[in-house]
Amino acid sequence: MDFTLNCPIPISEYPYITMAHGSGGRLSHQLIDKLFRPIFSDEQLDAGHDGAILPTVSGRMAFTTDSFVVKPVFFPGGNIGDLAVNGTVNDLACCGAKPEYLSVGMILEEGLAMEDLWKIVLTMKQAADLAGVRIVTGDTKVVDHGSGDQIFINTSGVGCVREGVNIDPSACKPGDVVILSGFIGDHGVAIMSAREGLEFQTSIESDSAALNGLVDAILDASLNVSVLRDPTRGGVATTLNEISKSAHAGIVLDETSIPVRPEVMGACEVLGLDPMYIANEGKILVIVPDDDSEKVLRAMQNHPHGKDSVIIGQLTEEHPSVVRMTTSIGSSRIIDMLTGEQLPRIC
Amino acid sequence: MDFTLNCPIPISEYPYITMAHGSGGRLSHQLIDKLFRPIFSDEQLDAGHDGAILPTVSGRMAFTTDSFVVKPVFFPGGNIGDLAVNGTVNDLACCGAKPEYLSVGMILEEGLAMEDLWKIVLTMKQAADLAGVRIVTGDTKVVDHGSGDQIFINTSGVGCVREGVNIDPSACKPGDVVILSGFIGDHGVAIMSAREGLEFQTSIESDSAALNGLVDAILDASLNVSVLRDPTRGGVATTLNEISKSAHAGIVLDETSIPVRPEVMGACEVLGLDPMYIANEGKILVIVPDDDSEKVLRAMQNHPHGKDSVIIGQLTEEHPSVVRMTTSIGSSRIIDMLTGEQLPRIC
Repeated sequence: MDFTLNCPIPISEYPYITMAHGSGGRLSHQLIDKLFRPIFSDEQLDAGHDGAILPTVSGRMAFTTDSFVVKPVFFPGGNIGDLAVNGTVNDLACCGAKPEYLSVGMILEEGLAMEDLWKIVLTMKQAADLAGVRIVTGDTKVVDHGSGDQIFINTSGVGCVREGVNIDPSACKPGDVVILSGFIGDHGVAIMSAREGLEFQTSIESDSAALNGLVDAILDASLNVSVLRDPTRGGVATTLNEISKSAHAGIVLDETSIPVRPEVMGACEVLGLDPMYIANEGKILVIVPDDDSEKVLRAMQNHPHGKDSVIIGQLTEEHPSVVRMTTSIGSSRIIDMLTGEQLPRIC
Repeated sequence: MDFTLNCPIPISEYPYITMAHGSGGRLSHQLIDKLFRPIFSDEQLDAGHDGAILPTVSGRMAFTTDSFVVKPVFFPGGNIGDLAVNGTVNDLACCGAKPEYLSVGMILEEGLAMEDLWKIVLTMKQAADLAGVRIVTGDTKVVDHGSGDQIFINTSGVGCVREGVNIDPSACKPGDVVILSGFIGDHGVAIMSAREGLEFQTSIESDSAALNGLVDAILDASLNVSVLRDPTRGGVATTLNEISKSAHAGIVLDETSIPVRPEVMGACEVLGLDPMYIANEGKILVIVPDDDSEKVLRAMQNHPHGKDSVIIGQLTEEHPSVVRMTTSIGSSRIIDMLTGEQLPRIC
């Protein structure tokens, strides 16, 4: 990201967000007119309504929302801004929809550095452009110092569902194949390494990325995909548990097939964490009938965001609603849903 | 609101929200499956996707977002829950759209009483039912104690824009008439009276209400309405300043026509506030050509949420982009945009 663009609000004069920036008055308008509007410039946003009027649409629409409270706000590989854009883009893509329009709702804490806000906003714009989505409406609130934590961002999104696609976890069947788009645990470990007070540092960066291009490639290869899911909070283990319960099928995984970087594995050992439960922000789990699995896998491997894609398991009739893993030494163990709190405020 | 429905999560066992409720694991699922899903029960929400798939739509869509950080969370006449539903319903209605689908993004602070969350969720459901909108998708995050303030709620909404309606503040013209739907300042004074440490108490309740029914009545009377706007943060004064700037027209108001309850006026005098700048959550400003003003006014007065509607002013060629008020003693003064912070965290 090019942060050399100067902040359009003079930082020497307005170094921090104040309560008046959330009043709806002059400083609120300055923030919107000078900082948000020029960077997110969009004919819908520019109309200055209470909401955006979208061009005429027809068909099934997907609608999704996500709030982001990641701590710290800046971390290796990204910040809360691109995370918030990519997260909602990915949720729409995982509905089988083309992500088109985003809303942005910011809750700023009094005292947030104006320069940090500017960097976050620039990153959001860059992420939106990369993903091909438009930020069309927004809202900003300010809470007093100590009632927030720098910045929380909600993004909601709408997009049209692709013709012929029916993503439905309850529709997947024994024999279907589970494909994972690459290395797991990068985002969680990057966040942990950036948190104050931690004794270790890694070179791992968050995998935060917009996956709509990868999803297009998957659906171009097969419309028989029944599940697209980005394993964020709770990680691959929790996501597969949700799917196995929806499908009333078992899932059996092959531990040796699951890609984990050595640095991530090392950090997990130090911290006592299991990478299967760590959040990812640029990975996708795909479930597809066996017959289509090879062509979907190849399509994924040919996409930059899916080059490390692998088949990691299969749905089974045995042990319905249970996820099991065949370990490297040949034994089998149950992979349960995450219990308690592993990594708070990871996204 | 009937709060006698028992909280489906045993409060004795889980009296407070913990970090684990935001982990994506077991307690997150308990919160969603036991508390949110049964009350917001909806076929879209029930599918358990990353987002909702909406039925086939066609036409222009409105899309809007708003975050709510009101303090205190419970106040005379409502709580953050119905405020969040009504606020987004009103933003959609003010786009000339029929509010149809809402998303709910909650940011909960560790330590929030489970019973308070339950009351808020029940109120949201009741408000959604009253307004005729469906809550179809949601997200919940938990932040550590001291990094939030009990609960923040984002609602985003989509709805189809009514055929033949073109809400566009830049299209209103000198001679057009400004209609206000009732008494101003109730919401702000209700919030202030509920805040700890304030020395006065009033019987004033928040005017929080869904205005989509009133907007339907207005548009049934005339499709020539150019502005529909709910004067929330910054109040009537700031909203009219925004409109006058968009239209490059002046606005002249008649002070004696603007309805303010004596208790609100009294509280404002004690607090040194001007009701023209106080947030409203159940009022609407309408701008309509003079020829249609009488029939729109009558339609408003015949609706329960508009029974106290009055004409408060007119657009002028003189003093473009300036709002002036003719006072009760015959003089004229400029009504500027709100400067600084009048009432923080009012919505």
